[in-house]
Amino acid sequence: MTHVLIIGGSDAGISAALRIREMAPKTKVTILLADDYPNFSICGLPFYLSGEVTDWHNLAHRTKDDIVREGIELLTRHRATLISPEKRSVTTIGPNGKIIEITYDKLIIGTGAVSSKPPVEGVDLAGVFFLRWMEDSFKLHTYLDECKPSSAIIIGGGYIGLEMADAFTVRGVKVTLVEYFPTVLNTVHTSFGKMVEDELKRHGVEVHSGTAVDKIQQNGERLLLTGSSGFSATGNLVLVAAGAKPESEIAKGAGILLNPQGAIKVNQFMETNIPNIYAAGDCVETWHQLLQKNVYMPLGTTAHKQGRVAGENAVGGKREFQGSLGTQVVKVFDLAIARTGLREEEARQAGYDPLTVSFETWDHKVYYPGAHPFNIRVTADVNTKAILGAQIIGHYQGEVAKRIDIFATAIFHRMSVEQLNDLDLSYTPPLSSPWDPVQMAVQAWSKQLNKTG
Amino acid sequence: MTHVLIIGGSDAGISAALRIREMAPKTKVTILLADDYPNFSICGLPFYLSGEVTDWHNLAHRTKDDIVREGIELLTRHRATLISPEKRSVTTIGPNGKIIEITYDKLIIGTGAVSSKPPVEGVDLAGVFFLRWMEDSFKLHTYLDECKPSSAIIIGGGYIGLEMADAFTVRGVKVTLVEYFPTVLNTVHTSFGKMVEDELKRHGVEVHSGTAVDKIQQNGERLLLTGSSGFSATGNLVLVAAGAKPESEIAKGAGILLNPQGAIKVNQFMETNIPNIYAAGDCVETWHQLLQKNVYMPLGTTAHKQGRVAGENAVGGKREFQGSLGTQVVKVFDLAIARTGLREEEARQAGYDPLTVSFETWDHKVYYPGAHPFNIRVTADVNTKAILGAQIIGHYQGEVAKRIDIFATAIFHRMSVEQLNDLDLSYTPPLSSPWDPVQMAVQAWSKQLNKTG
Repeated sequence: MTHVLIIGGSDAGISAALRIREMAPKTKVTILLADDYPNFSICGLPFYLSGEVTDWHNLAHRTKDDIVREGIELLTRHRATLISPEKRSVTTIGPNGKIIEITYDKLIIGTGAVSSKPPVEGVDLAGVFFLRWMEDSFKLHTYLDECKPSSAIIIGGGYIGLEMADAFTVRGVKVTLVEYFPTVLNTVHTSFGKMVEDELKRHGVEVHSGTAVDKIQQNGERLLLTGSSGFSATGNLVLVAAGAKPESEIAKGAGILLNPQGAIKVNQFMETNIPNIYAAGDCVETWHQLLQKNVYMPLGTTAHKQGRVAGENAVGGKREFQGSLGTQVVKVFDLAIARTGLREEEARQAGYDPLTVSFETWDHKVYYPGAHPFNIRVTADVNTKAILGAQIIGHYQGEVAKRIDIFATAIFHRMSVEQLNDLDLSYTPPLSSPWDPVQMAVQAWSKQLNKTG
Repeated sequence: MTHVLIIGGSDAGISAALRIREMAPKTKVTILLADDYPNFSICGLPFYLSGEVTDWHNLAHRTKDDIVREGIELLTRHRATLISPEKRSVTTIGPNGKIIEITYDKLIIGTGAVSSKPPVEGVDLAGVFFLRWMEDSFKLHTYLDECKPSSAIIIGGGYIGLEMADAFTVRGVKVTLVEYFPTVLNTVHTSFGKMVEDELKRHGVEVHSGTAVDKIQQNGERLLLTGSSGFSATGNLVLVAAGAKPESEIAKGAGILLNPQGAIKVNQFMETNIPNIYAAGDCVETWHQLLQKNVYMPLGTTAHKQGRVAGENAVGGKREFQGSLGTQVVKVFDLAIARTGLREEEARQAGYDPLTVSFETWDHKVYYPGAHPFNIRVTADVNTKAILGAQIIGHYQGEVAKRIDIFATAIFHRMSVEQLNDLDLSYTPPLSSPWDPVQMAVQAWSKQLNKTG
C-alpha cells in the first residue's frame, strides 16, 4: 500500500490529505502535526480574540474526528525534525520526547510560515505578542482575560494588524497602530490606505503611519515604544504583526532548494527538486498567474489549492496549480477592502504600459436605503486594454469581496476592459445598478484613455 | 449635421443618446418621449410603492436637466405614431394634440414593452392595476394613499409580483399571491421556488401556486377572484404582474420585421431590416450569448447595453452587442435569488448533455456571526464540463448577486467547472470561505459526475 506522509496539518496539509482520500481511497495517509490543532482557520483568530467567536473549537474547518473519519491518520504533537530523501523517511519527536522515524513513498511538506520578528530592541519582552498559530492565540487570549489590558500597541498595519485593531476595539481595548509604510495596508494604493486610516480613527484607533519602531522597553506596568520622528507611545501590551516568513528549515536540511526569501522552490505540479517530495502552502513560493513566475505570497486560499494539487499528484495525478493573482479582502470595522492582480507600479515593472483610473459610485442604486460609497481602482494596459489589477473599498455589506472576484475572474482569463463591460451581470436596485460598478469603472477607464491617448 | 432621432427615453433610448454624445459630440440627438418621465428606473417602482423610496423623483437615473446638459434634445409628451422609412421621418402627437413630423438621418427605436394582459374576465375593472411605467405607478400610489387598502391580490409570481408582495407587506397591506406555474419564480428550479414561497409565507403572504385565475368580479367593496381547483380570494385591489410584451406596433407599421412574440428583429449591431433604423431594449429580441441565437428576454441591464451599441453604431461605429445570459437577481424580503445561463431542461433542449448538482453551504465561515444558508445549483455539460447555468438562493446580504456574476463571467467565457475551481477568489471569514461557495459547488458537481460517470 502506498504511503503518503504529510508534514503539517493546516490548510495545505489537510487539503492534500483529503484530495488523496478522494482520488485514491486505498492510499495510506499520515499527517504529522507539530501542535494539537489540525485544520484550524488561522484567518479566524482575530475574531476569537475579539470575542465574536466565543469558543475556539468553532475555528476548526474540521474536527480531529472529521479528519480521522476520512481515513487519515493524524499524529498530533509530532514535530518533524529531519527528512531523509535517501531512506525516504521523516524523523519526528513525539509528545513524550520519543523519537520515531516514519517512512514514506511520497512526502508532502506543508510546514506553513512563522511570524516575522522585526529588528526591534525589546521584542522579546513579556507583554509582546505575535499571532500566527493557535498557541499564539491562546497566550494572547489568556492575557486579555486575566490582565484585562486597557491599551494595546500594534506594530504593523497589514491584514492581521488591521483585523486585530478592530478586534481589540471590539473588546474595549484602546489601540495605537504603528505602520512603517506611508499608509496602512500597503498592498493597496495609498489613497485607499488613507481611507482605511480614517475608518480606524473613526473607531478610536490612534494611527501612526510612516513610523519605524526602534525600541520596546518596560515602563512601570506598561510597555514604552519609541521610534522614528520622535514617536513614542505606551500600552499594556504590544502585538507584532509584521508579516510572515516561510517555515522551511527542515526542507533546507534535506537539500530542497529554497528561493531567496527562504520559500521552498516548487513547480506548478507542486514538486520540489527532490523526487517524491512535494510542498504546498505558506512554506512555498507561489506561481503568479499574471506575471507567469514564482513569487512569495502566502495566502490561505492558495494553500488550499496548492495542497489539493500536491495531494492529487502524490497519488499519480498530473494537475498543475494554475496560480494566484494575490486576490485578497479584509474587513476593518464597517469597510471591506479588496484587491487582485497588479498595482500600477508592479505592472510597469512587469513590462506593461499601465493606466489606472479611480472611480467612485454607490454599491447599489442610491434611491434604495443603505447605499454606501464604493471606490474602485482599475489598472489596465493601454495597448492591449487587458485588465491587470483592481482594488475596491466600500461598506462590507456592499459586495466588495465578490466584485473583486469578477475582476479576478476577468484577469485570470485575460479579459480586456471592453470584455468586462460586455458581461451580463446581475442587477436589482437594492444590490447593484444596471451597469454594475465594476463596469462603470472600466467605462471610466476607457474614457480616460481616450482623453489622454 | 447628422441627426439621430430616438423613440423612447427609458434605458435603451437614453443609453443610446449618451453614447452618441460621447462618440460624436457634434451629432444632433433628439429623444421623443411618450410620457413626462425620461430615464426613470422602472426596476425601482416597487420600492417607491413600498414607501422605501419616499420621493419618486429619486427614481430618475438622471434628471431632465442632466440629460439636456449632455446636449440631448428631449421632447416629452410626444408620442410617435408613424415612421416613414422613405421620407426618413417620424410623425408625433405633442402635448397639445399638435402633429409634427421630424426627419432623421438615423433612427433608434426604444419603445420598450407593455404589461401583458392575461385572458381573465374582469381584468379591466376599477381596482385592477398593472405596473410598468411611471403613470401606472402613480395610479397605484394614489390609490394606496387615498383608499388605504388592507389587502391586495397579486396575479403572477415573477420578479415584479414578488417585489410587490414584499412592497405591499412593508406597507402593511395583506397579500395573496397567485401563480399559474407550480411554484413562484419559474425562472429558477422549483426547489428554489419553494424556498421563495416559504419566505413569502414567513412574512404573512398567502401563496397559491399552480393556480389559474379565471375571473375577477366586484364583490361589495372588494374584488373577488376565482380560478382553478376551486380557488377563490378577495382583496381591495388586484395587481396583475403577468409579464410584458414588446411595444412594437409603430415598428411593424413601418415594415420592420418582428419575431413571433412581436419583438423587433435585430442583428448584433442592433440594426433592423430597414436601413438607418436601429432598435434596442425591451422592444427587441436579444442575442443569447450561450445559445447563439435570438430570444425574447427583456431586462434593464440588456436595454442599457443594447442602447449603447445602437447609439455607437448610429454614428458610424461597428460594435456588436455581445449577448445576454439572462442573468438576474431579485430580493424578496430577506432572500436574494439569482440565476444565469441555462436551466437543465433548456440546456438539454439546446443539445447539451447537462448534469445539475444542488449544493448547500454557508455564505461565510459559520463561526463568524451572521452566517446564513447558501444554496447553489450548477448545471454543466458532462462531456466538455463547460458550465451552462447556475442559480443561487441565500440571504440578500450574503453576496448572492455578485456570486452569480462569477458564474456569469465564467459562462460568458466558456469556462469549465475545473477552470472556475482554479480561480483565485477573495476570502476573509466574515465574507466567504477559503474555497468560495461557488467553488465548493463546482467541486460537488465534479464528485457527482465521478459517481454517476
